[in-house]
Amino acid sequence: MSTAYVAPLKDMQFVLNRLAGIDRIAQLPGCEEATSDVVDAILEEAGKFAGGVLAPLNQEGDKLGVKWHDKQVTMPPGFGEAYRQFVEAGWNGLSCDSEFGGQGLPKVVAAAVQEMWKASNIAFSLCPLLTLGAIEALALCGTAKQKETFLPNMVSGLWTGTMNLTEPQAGSDLAAVRSRAVPQGDGSYRIFGQKIFITYGEHDMAENIVHLVLARTPDAPEGVKGISLFVVPKFLVNDDGSLGQRNDAWCVSIEHKLGIHASPTCVMAYGDNGGAVGYLIGKENDGLKYMFVMMNAARFAVGLEGLAIGERAYQLALSYAKERTQGRAIEGSAGPVAIIHHPDVRRMLMLMKSQIEAMRALAYVVAAAHDVALQHPDEAERRRNQAFVDLMIPVVKGWSTETGNEIAYLGVQVHGGMGYIEETGAAQHLRDARITTIYEGTTGIQANDLIGRKLARDGGATLKAVIALIEQTATDLAGIGDSDADADFVAIATALRAGVAALSRAAAYIVTGYGSDIRGVSVGAVPFLKLLGIVAGGWQMARAALAARADIAAGNADPFLPAKIVTTRFYADHVLSAASGLCETVVSGGAGALALTEEQF
Amino acid sequence: MSTAYVAPLKDMQFVLNRLAGIDRIAQLPGCEEATSDVVDAILEEAGKFAGGVLAPLNQEGDKLGVKWHDKQVTMPPGFGEAYRQFVEAGWNGLSCDSEFGGQGLPKVVAAAVQEMWKASNIAFSLCPLLTLGAIEALALCGTAKQKETFLPNMVSGLWTGTMNLTEPQAGSDLAAVRSRAVPQGDGSYRIFGQKIFITYGEHDMAENIVHLVLARTPDAPEGVKGISLFVVPKFLVNDDGSLGQRNDAWCVSIEHKLGIHASPTCVMAYGDNGGAVGYLIGKENDGLKYMFVMMNAARFAVGLEGLAIGERAYQLALSYAKERTQGRAIEGSAGPVAIIHHPDVRRMLMLMKSQIEAMRALAYVVAAAHDVALQHPDEAERRRNQAFVDLMIPVVKGWSTETGNEIAYLGVQVHGGMGYIEETGAAQHLRDARITTIYEGTTGIQANDLIGRKLARDGGATLKAVIALIEQTATDLAGIGDSDADADFVAIATALRAGVAALSRAAAYIVTGYGSDIRGVSVGAVPFLKLLGIVAGGWQMARAALAARADIAAGNADPFLPAKIVTTRFYADHVLSAASGLCETVVSGGAGALALTEEQF
Repeated sequence: MSTAYVAPLKDMQFVLNRLAGIDRIAQLPGCEEATSDVVDAILEEAGKFAGGVLAPLNQEGDKLGVKWHDKQVTMPPGFGEAYRQFVEAGWNGLSCDSEFGGQGLPKVVAAAVQEMWKASNIAFSLCPLLTLGAIEALALCGTAKQKETFLPNMVSGLWTGTMNLTEPQAGSDLAAVRSRAVPQGDGSYRIFGQKIFITYGEHDMAENIVHLVLARTPDAPEGVKGISLFVVPKFLVNDDGSLGQRNDAWCVSIEHKLGIHASPTCVMAYGDNGGAVGYLIGKENDGLKYMFVMMNAARFAVGLEGLAIGERAYQLALSYAKERTQGRAIEGSAGPVAIIHHPDVRRMLMLMKSQIEAMRALAYVVAAAHDVALQHPDEAERRRNQAFVDLMIPVVKGWSTETGNEIAYLGVQVHGGMGYIEETGAAQHLRDARITTIYEGTTGIQANDLIGRKLARDGGATLKAVIALIEQTATDLAGIGDSDADADFVAIATALRAGVAALSRAAAYIVTGYGSDIRGVSVGAVPFLKLLGIVAGGWQMARAALAARADIAAGNADPFLPAKIVTTRFYADHVLSAASGLCETVVSGGAGALALTEEQF
Repeated sequence: MSTAYVAPLKDMQFVLNRLAGIDRIAQLPGCEEATSDVVDAILEEAGKFAGGVLAPLNQEGDKLGVKWHDKQVTMPPGFGEAYRQFVEAGWNGLSCDSEFGGQGLPKVVAAAVQEMWKASNIAFSLCPLLTLGAIEALALCGTAKQKETFLPNMVSGLWTGTMNLTEPQAGSDLAAVRSRAVPQGDGSYRIFGQKIFITYGEHDMAENIVHLVLARTPDAPEGVKGISLFVVPKFLVNDDGSLGQRNDAWCVSIEHKLGIHASPTCVMAYGDNGGAVGYLIGKENDGLKYMFVMMNAARFAVGLEGLAIGERAYQLALSYAKERTQGRAIEGSAGPVAIIHHPDVRRMLMLMKSQIEAMRALAYVVAAAHDVALQHPDEAERRRNQAFVDLMIPVVKGWSTETGNEIAYLGVQVHGGMGYIEETGAAQHLRDARITTIYEGTTGIQANDLIGRKLARDGGATLKAVIALIEQTATDLAGIGDSDADADFVAIATALRAGVAALSRAAAYIVTGYGSDIRGVSVGAVPFLKLLGIVAGGWQMARAALAARADIAAGNADPFLPAKIVTTRFYADHVLSAASGLCETVVSGGAGALALTEEQF
């Protein structure tokens, strides 16, 4: 029971309605079905599925893990059946195009639902996540024939998908990809090469697995400009759509990992027995471009993982802190009290809760902006929102996963010695979370993307627009603080102002120095990413506090609303307070980091 | 090879000689043998043993773990033989009284040697650590007969020791201890009860295990005032010193933990078959007092574990970062570069390195003060040093273990995807480190001890004296910065001044508010502990930079010296920079943390 998961519907709905503007999204062309009622019903059903079907498999899946034998992967008990139900209920295609059988729901709704899959069973959730990425690439760049062949079964979830980028010598450096694709003269290619870290590269939950593979054609230029993308199904597909021959794509081993034990991480061998049949997606040498499309979606999704594992770790720690009695109250008590009464346990729980709510708010607001960027009739509005999404994706990815790790760490700490015992379940969240700052690009890679492509490239223009919005929120807060002498709002306003000032100063430093001192500035990339995350999260929490205040003023007596204000206050004092120190690190941290020779280490 | 451990002798010696004043220690009565030459020789030998014997067992020990069968615990292969060599070489009694066969070396030397055991094989090191704690309690409070019976074999290491505090219902709350001790009229007692989380409660490396057990006599008062301490050997000892009857003390199960898999964490059942024979140590109902003596030593030692695991994680990450080539340089390069060249990898390595050096410096300085507190002929000097040690023990414990976890976390990150694969070894350090902020009192417990018994109780007097010393160091730095316009020293001085100002402000807030708002002030306990750790560590690094500068000025061309200055500069910009934010959290963080009702969570 203690390892149960209950979808945080109330906060999700508050964020969707009051911060992400689901009403506005429902007015976009193509999003008309996403009315508040429908969204509520979907979230409720998803919550039931996550809590009732996926969550109970999470700990057992971790304990038993996946098994590899003779190039086959066996999933832990219950996973196959859960996946069957998942597909049957239509969850897989929730946000996919209705042309191929999806439900076409907005990204912001999909984000909330995805959070539930990830929180209830992160290992399970990686299978549909990878499938979605492959669907996106095929839908965007595939031929009509490819779409017809693969998409309906992938959207339904009958077939799953993978992304094959990494090779042993290459890691995150795609320029070093060596896998070869040899044209056969009939439009098809033969693929040869080994790929590592392939999530769900092999498993027994679906009839077919559709691998998207990066490889080089014989005359391709060197580096990233010579990479092409191929679709390589595990089973070839006959013209009538039935499954044909087994392709020469095999899982030759799986990794023994710190966490996500129920998610197979495969070493895939292509072409060891004559060549794996593959079909070019889009144009030759354009593979990296297509991968970036998928990667943005995947990076956002991994950001949600940080949030989701954090939420799960929080629920576990909270339930323990309420049940476990130990020690007298520090101010004196007749007998032992529940540990939630102890100030430091409270502090830890509030650190978890407040950062989860900040991450959720920012992620959903970014998802909503993505919907606007895709669907809004006005081009300027689309462009403006896309720029915001592009700026924020590395933040949602990098900040939310680093913070998710911190939260999982605190979750263990709240449990004391019991947290170190695997049966408790808190340690699993710590282990599972640890991959999220690494895959789909490490935090360092996100931060370089942020300060380079997203900040320096446009001279800081997009961020300046965001900063203006944050400053407006700080002004709104200060008005309340001044007039009401409301201590919470005064504190929130002060912290947000200090935070946004720190952010402005750090951003100006980066924009100015990026051209002249790229190495020194890059030392501050991750501290800057965290700074932007903390301040942007504080901005959304401040908006939440203002909305809560308005609702209270309108007569709503839900205790959720004052709690939101208190939580924002806590965030201001315990999280936003780090902003000025991070700014110092950004503007002065280059020298000390780079002065040693390698031999001096 | 990559998982090798090389004792960081150079930094250890620098800290001992230039910061901890080993020369001064060697002049104390009873410490005369600890001349610089002798200490160097001991460290070198210990380094060989740690690197050659203990380190190679670390990963295999983690993988295979300990096995429990029929109340027996089997250690992983090689551990028994390594322990035999450890005992034979005389390492166990290094710091023990020569009266019982120890070598009587100062605590500061023992600290450096212990760091090596912990870094090379944390799971192994817990066995002698617990033995030392038991030796200390027996030496301090045991009867002559008890000392004679147990100490020689424990000092040699032939027998090992344990500490039995925790019970299932009690956790860290010793007031809730229920184990019973029934006097038998012959001076002995029969002990009944179950203890959990007993490190090395059972194993196959030693002839006998001497359990120290907290229990209540029949008429004992309730709470912590009714706890007595008993010695309960696994095998009773005959009058001639030979081993007698098997006592009724059994390991009924072991825990399945996140890490330290090669350290058995036992559930011990006392008296299930008639009662375990035990002998009272010291006086009835004084058990807690004796436990506190051991606990201080144990807390310091666990602080060293944070440092040590950090060092090990750093060595692994550094070697990977130098060997692994991936990606072009951000400023442009012909081909891929070693990842240590990438600014963010550098930043992570420097974060690891600088904090390790700060933790080591502080820990050894505290250990040296402990030697002075024990051995100095002048009572005022002893008392002053003891107050410093008492103030700093929760900081060495809490700050070094939290930081050790951060470093192990970064160690995984430096490895990228490989860090998540267990075979790499980085993940083990993360798992092993995770217990250190929990056992021997969680960080929250350390922080409450710090702000209550160590800060508020003396009205901040001890800390004020420390602050005056830190300010003096900042003044020394500023002199250099001003006269030479040396950018590094200017930056270090500025950061240290800001840090100590933040520390003073936060301390004043706590001292003032502790009586009137203990709950609100206690919310800031852990942030204050971190603040004190960061600033005290920065103080020691600043002293190190000054010493390095003096050595350079004296003509020493060792590249270690300028590296120390650069590392201090880095620490100033990347670590000390957090001080003002932590201060803000201490002085304003109470309100938001305590305002929610439990139902609002």
